[in-house]
Order: sequence, then structure tokens, then C-alpha cells
Amino acid sequence: MSPTPVPSGRIRAVDTHDIRFPTSRELDGSDAMNPDPDYSAAYVVLRTESEDGGDGPEGYGYTFTIGRGNEVQVAAIHALRHHLVGRSLDEVCANPGTLYRDLVGDSQLRWLGPEKGVMHMAIGAVVNAAWDLAAKRAGQPLWRLLAEADPAWLVEQIDFRYLTDALTPAEALEILRRGRQGAAERTARLLRRGYPAYTTSPGWLGYGDDKLTRLAAQAVADGFRQIKLKVGADLEDDVRRCRVARAVIGPDIRMAIDANQRWDVAEAIRWTKALAEFDPYWIEEPTSPDDVLGHAAIREAVAPVKVATGEHVHNRVVFKQMLQAGALDIVQIDAARVGGVNENLAILLLAARFGVPVCPHAGGVGLCELVQHLSMFDYVAVSGSTENRAIEYVDHLHEHFLEPVVVREGHYTAPTAPGFSAAMRPESIARYSFPDGAFWTADRDAQKGRAA
Amino acid sequence: MSPTPVPSGRIRAVDTHDIRFPTSRELDGSDAMNPDPDYSAAYVVLRTESEDGGDGPEGYGYTFTIGRGNEVQVAAIHALRHHLVGRSLDEVCANPGTLYRDLVGDSQLRWLGPEKGVMHMAIGAVVNAAWDLAAKRAGQPLWRLLAEADPAWLVEQIDFRYLTDALTPAEALEILRRGRQGAAERTARLLRRGYPAYTTSPGWLGYGDDKLTRLAAQAVADGFRQIKLKVGADLEDDVRRCRVARAVIGPDIRMAIDANQRWDVAEAIRWTKALAEFDPYWIEEPTSPDDVLGHAAIREAVAPVKVATGEHVHNRVVFKQMLQAGALDIVQIDAARVGGVNENLAILLLAARFGVPVCPHAGGVGLCELVQHLSMFDYVAVSGSTENRAIEYVDHLHEHFLEPVVVREGHYTAPTAPGFSAAMRPESIARYSFPDGAFWTADRDAQKGRAA
Repeated sequence: MSPTPVPSGRIRAVDTHDIRFPTSRELDGSDAMNPDPDYSAAYVVLRTESEDGGDGPEGYGYTFTIGRGNEVQVAAIHALRHHLVGRSLDEVCANPGTLYRDLVGDSQLRWLGPEKGVMHMAIGAVVNAAWDLAAKRAGQPLWRLLAEADPAWLVEQIDFRYLTDALTPAEALEILRRGRQGAAERTARLLRRGYPAYTTSPGWLGYGDDKLTRLAAQAVADGFRQIKLKVGADLEDDVRRCRVARAVIGPDIRMAIDANQRWDVAEAIRWTKALAEFDPYWIEEPTSPDDVLGHAAIREAVAPVKVATGEHVHNRVVFKQMLQAGALDIVQIDAARVGGVNENLAILLLAARFGVPVCPHAGGVGLCELVQHLSMFDYVAVSGSTENRAIEYVDHLHEHFLEPVVVREGHYTAPTAPGFSAAMRPESIARYSFPDGAFWTADRDAQKGRAA
Repeated sequence: MSPTPVPSGRIRAVDTHDIRFPTSRELDGSDAMNPDPDYSAAYVVLRTESEDGGDGPEGYGYTFTIGRGNEVQVAAIHALRHHLVGRSLDEVCANPGTLYRDLVGDSQLRWLGPEKGVMHMAIGAVVNAAWDLAAKRAGQPLWRLLAEADPAWLVEQIDFRYLTDALTPAEALEILRRGRQGAAERTARLLRRGYPAYTTSPGWLGYGDDKLTRLAAQAVADGFRQIKLKVGADLEDDVRRCRVARAVIGPDIRMAIDANQRWDVAEAIRWTKALAEFDPYWIEEPTSPDDVLGHAAIREAVAPVKVATGEHVHNRVVFKQMLQAGALDIVQIDAARVGGVNENLAILLLAARFGVPVCPHAGGVGLCELVQHLSMFDYVAVSGSTENRAIEYVDHLHEHFLEPVVVREGHYTAPTAPGFSAAMRPESIARYSFPDGAFWTADRDAQKGRAA
């Protein structure tokens, strides 16, 4: 196929960066649980050296956080470096699953989860950086590497531990083999039309009605067929905002609502029913992301409003149960919450096994850039459909990426550059590094000036 | 009542220590998932100053880890200091629940969980240190402060978010009010007889049959009525070891088995049934601690062998579901996994509401010292019973604590010193601090010597 742009070599170093953007000042990203997020990334660079001792390619990954604690996430990535430095690039690229298993299986680090929270997200960042290298080596965008991979190889990338009561390796293989039928046509269609997006940009809780109205109208004009509103802080406000939004977008555009874990089970049911007259398409994160049985109870009570969750579901074992319990109409994967591409492969296959559509969580810093690859793979090689599927889109912070997503007429354009679209601009890394980047230094000086 | 030994003042500083013990060299603590743990503590000291500017009392807490990554846990505790420094000691002691809610409710830090993993365990360490201060202020051991507290005040200490479909504040209050009946008699009995213990010391996976035989016989001679064996690495070995142990202890001593999350659901059922002839009392952690539905399926299949779990159950929401789903016969709280005393109050009350006995996980570093207080409170003021209840006991590392547990004739002696029994010896902190304490420095020198 294409020439190999990534030579043999080894991982030489693991660099980390604590990058924070001051998004809280505009209430971008504000919701009922997160009033003032400063969108941040714990960014990892796998630096490699080629066999002749020169600099090899770099692999990029990150965990998304919302500010404080980003340094803890950086420390967790740093704690993984003994698994990385010296590792053969050939091995990492040929079999990212080996690295993934080694990281998840480090028994001492596993105690800090297992497979959840800070340590697991750190593993996800590193694993995604390894896939970035693997896709560069293959000379393909990640979605295409995955979509054209041998099904048996893909199955080897998955850790089936704790899954086999719902999905066996043989069943996964069968799904992937079936997915090969018509894959070439779907790739062509994807390259031509892109993948559907919906937008959350109009609906942040901190925005006034005027801004909501303006942005909702703009979303429809831009070709989006679904918007999303944050709800859950105040029911009267929610009724007003849903009415405003529905009046602007009309009856044919879908309107999802998102409570960001704000409610207990009974309250979720009551509140969602109170908003049902505005025909919400789904209620997202109605309660704790840990509450499988709670989601199942809510789903039963609020139908035909659908139930969606996943951005905080911490691993494949919880997704498995959500599906077993019939708790979800929509699976919302997140590219940087679980253990990277490998675990998301498992989750996509679980969703396919249960026949539940996947509509990824995105936004934040660089989550759109990553997760588009997973949905495009899902379309070409797993579910075979974009019906009732869309990737979240938020128009923040893309300017900091070297290969930002391109959304046109409500669709993500399929990336064609080799890799995982994860590289941030060096000048953004320098300016927003915390606490010593130029932005934060100037910010502190300005605060001192105001105080003086 | 007693004079107030803790004057008014403020939290002045939050000190952290990365303390690691080289336990892996003796295979102490080895099990099917954790072959070589180095028992460690991310230790926090809340330093206070009294109103006159002098040194006030110190509050101690810690997260238990098994080695690598302990520095990440320390970083997470450090990330909480802005909630602590300057806070009034009066407020912390009068209402630890306010601090707990502020920590769990920090929306930016919450993103790193929510309420799970590294960040949540850090909150638990700090919250427990606050309770240590509160108990010192009250001049009472923590168990007694809790057991004699006003039920309405205890209810205020609990975060009922996500619990109200299983336990409301009114129901919790009713349980605690009922618990007052006969409490004085139970306190007297507890002070006289102590609280039942069981021992895991004989059963580590890395021990040979001779050591198992000797330690199991010793356990019976020491008055323990239950031992525990690690299983799950190799079925033939497990059959042999269970046979050896049962032969030593006879039919009347209970023998629990513990797989430390090793199995998938079907394998757990098959393996447990294969060991049923040795009459195991419970199978502990048969599969992922996240797998509520899996535990329920296993429990249904392996009865009359009981199912126990909890040391890695990350918060009250998962315990709630374990109980709602009928997944557990035994609730195993851990003093340092969840969000501290406050969240464990919720879990004890959930267990009482569902009528399931609590047998805490302990061992590690200082887990016995902490959790004894919670079981003793449970006995005096919640469940009112020690029947089918016992606290795990492991005879490691107690010498590093200023007020180590005292286990006699198979019972924990009730602590009488004010506080939470959490203070480590200064000389232990100095010697085992990682990487620069005297032990680790000498260890590196010795390794260099061997290498030279």
C-alpha cells in the first residue's frame, strides 16, 4: 500500500503538558453541575527515536478536564512512563492492544481504579497517542486504519475480561465480519457526505435567551438537524428556554436536553415529564453515571423521550450493564474517558450487539477531533448506518489543533491526514501552559494590577 | 462532658507524605490479581493553629495503595488544599459534612471522577483526617462520637444525592433513632468483649502449603472463628489449598475465599461451584467491582455460598445498586476507598435498610485501625448486632501506628483514645518515605552494590 512514513525505532521520552484555557470567563460550557469550567488538557507526547538515533515521529494524546486537578491527571500520565520508554515502535504500532493490556494490567496502578477515574483516563491518553503513531505508520487517518483492519486483528485489540456474559470474542468477530459487507461503498459515501453532527453551542446554561435564540437559529441555518440544551438548574427557566428554542427551530429539528447528572431518579422522571411538551429527543445524563438501575427506571418512565448517557461512564463494564439492563436508547462514547481506542472498540461492539445507536460525546478540548474517527469507523465497519446517529459538535477551541475538525452543512468531514487528529499547535501549548505559559503569567500580572 | 482538648483555630497547612513499605519481598498480601504489592499510604496531616497563633492539634488520614502511583494519590490530596487552608476548626469539627460536600461538589475536580478513583480516595483521606480532629475535639474515639451523636446530626452528615430511590433522609433517621434503643448496653458489651475479627493472614496466594497449614492452625489457636484464602489463579492449586485449610481448621471454623476480581461471570460460577465441597462461607470479589448485574447472577447461581464485595466498590451509588439488585450477602466497606466517614455512614445505613450484614475489608496499611471504628458504630447504633459480622484482620504493619489495633482472642478491642487511630509513628514516616527515606535510600545503594 502506501509507503511507511514511520520507521522502526523506540519510544524515547514521554512529555506531558498541563494546558488550560480560560473558558469560564464567557460561560462557554456552563451547565447545571459545572457552572465555570476552564477547559483543559493533560497532553502527552510520545517522542520516538528512529533506529539511526535521530528523531522519529511523535504520537499525541490527552485527557480532557475542566480546570483544577489537571495537574493530577498529568501526574498520572507521568506514572505510566516506565511502560513506555524503550518500547519498540514496531510492537506499539503492530499491536496497540499489548500496550493497553500492560497498562491496565499493572497491578499496583490498577489499585487506584480499577479501570476508572484519573488513572484510567491517563491510560486512555497514552493508548490514544499510541494509536496516533500506529495510524501515522499506516499512512491513514485512524478511522480508515480501523475500518480496513482485519476483523481478527481488531478482536485481538479488545480486552474481553468482564464482558463475556454479554459479548464473546466470537460474537465480536461475527459483527466485524458482517461489517465488511458494503464497507467500500460506505467509505466512499463518508468521504463524499461526511458524518452527521448535532450542536450544543446554543444551549449552555449560562447563556441568556437572546444568545440562545440567535445561536439556535444559526444552527438551523448551518444545516444541523439537532441541537442540545442544558437543563436541570431551575425548572421554570428550563420550560422557558425549551419553549424559546423549540419556537426558533420548529417541530422538525431535534432538540436534546442534558441534565449533567443533576437529579435523583424520581426527580429526573418528574422534571423530564415536565419538559415533554417541547418534544425533547433525548434526556442526557439524568442522574449519576454509575446508576445503571436508576437509568433503567428513568427510561421506563419517560418514554417516548429517549435516555442517553456515557460521557462519564468510566469503562466497558458499566456500558455492558447499561445495555443488559435496557437502560439506554443512545450510547454516548467519549474518546478520552475510558482506556482509549481499545476500550472504545469494545463499547462500539457492545452497542452493536444490543442494537443501540452510538452518538458520541464531544466538545471540551479536542474531543471532537478524536471521536469523529470512532464514529466513522462505526459507520463503515460496525453498525453500517448513520440513521439516528450524530456526533456532538461544539465550536470551541478547534483553532488550537493542527488538523481541526471540519464541519460543513451539519456534517463532520472525514479526515484524510494520517493519524488521530490529536496534535495541538506548539504556540497554543506554549501560551496556555499552566501556570507558566504567557497567557496565565499575564493574567496573574493583570490581577495583581487590579488588586494594587 | 469531657473538657475540650482541641481549642478553636484554623487549618494552617496540609502536609502530604508518600510512604511505601517493601511488602512484596515476602509475598505478604499476594493474590490472584496483585502478585507483588508494596503496601503504601498517601498520608495527609491537617496542621492547625490555635487562636493565639500557636500550634493546634493535627488530624491524620490516608489513602491505601499498593505501591506505584502512590505519588499520584499524593498529588490528588495536594489538589484539595484550597478547600482546607484557612478553614475554621470549629466548623470542621461541628460539621464535617460541610467540608465533605465542598470537596465532592468542587465541579472542576468532580470531572476527574465523579466520586471515584484517585480523586475520590483523596477526598476520603482528607475527610477522615477531619473526623480525626472532630473526635479529638470531642475527647472520644471516633466510634463513640458517632454512636452517641444526635441521629438528626448524623443524617446531616450524609449526602443523599442519588440515594433517595433506596434510602431517604427520613428513613435514615428512623434507623438511627431505632438504633438508640439498647445502645448503652451494647457499648458496655463492646468495651468488655470487643468486636469479632476474622483473619486473612494464613491465606495469601504466595504462601506454600506448610506456611498455610501453620498459620491456619495458629489462627484457630488464637481464637479466630473465620479465616480467608486467596483463590483464582489456578483451580487445582485452589482445590489443594482449600482441602489443606479445611483439614486444619475443621468443620466449625468458617473459611471465606477471595478471588480479587479475577473472573468473568460464568467462570466465577464454575470455579466457586468447584470449591463448594470445602464449604466456603463466602466468595469475595468474584468479578469486577463495577459489575452489579454480574454479582447478582453469580449470587443466584452459587448459593448457599454467599457473595461478598466492596473493597473496590467506589461509592455509595454502586453499593445502593448492589443492594437493590440483591447482588450481595455481605457488604464489605473500606474506610479509605470511598469519600471518608460521611459516605461510609450512608453505606452502613443502606446495608441496614436492606438487612445485609457488614464485614469490612481491612489489612493494607492502617485499614484495620480506621475501619474498626465504623463497625463498632454500626454495632452500637445501627445494626445492633455482631451476628454474622466480623472485621477482617491482617497482622501486618501495625507497628507503624501510634495506637495500633489490639486483637485478642479473635476480637478487636474497642479503642478508647480520642480520635480515629490514624496517626503513624514519625520514625516510620521518615524511614519509609519514598523515594528519599532511609529505607529506600539504603535499598537503592544495595541494588547498586549488587549491580557493581
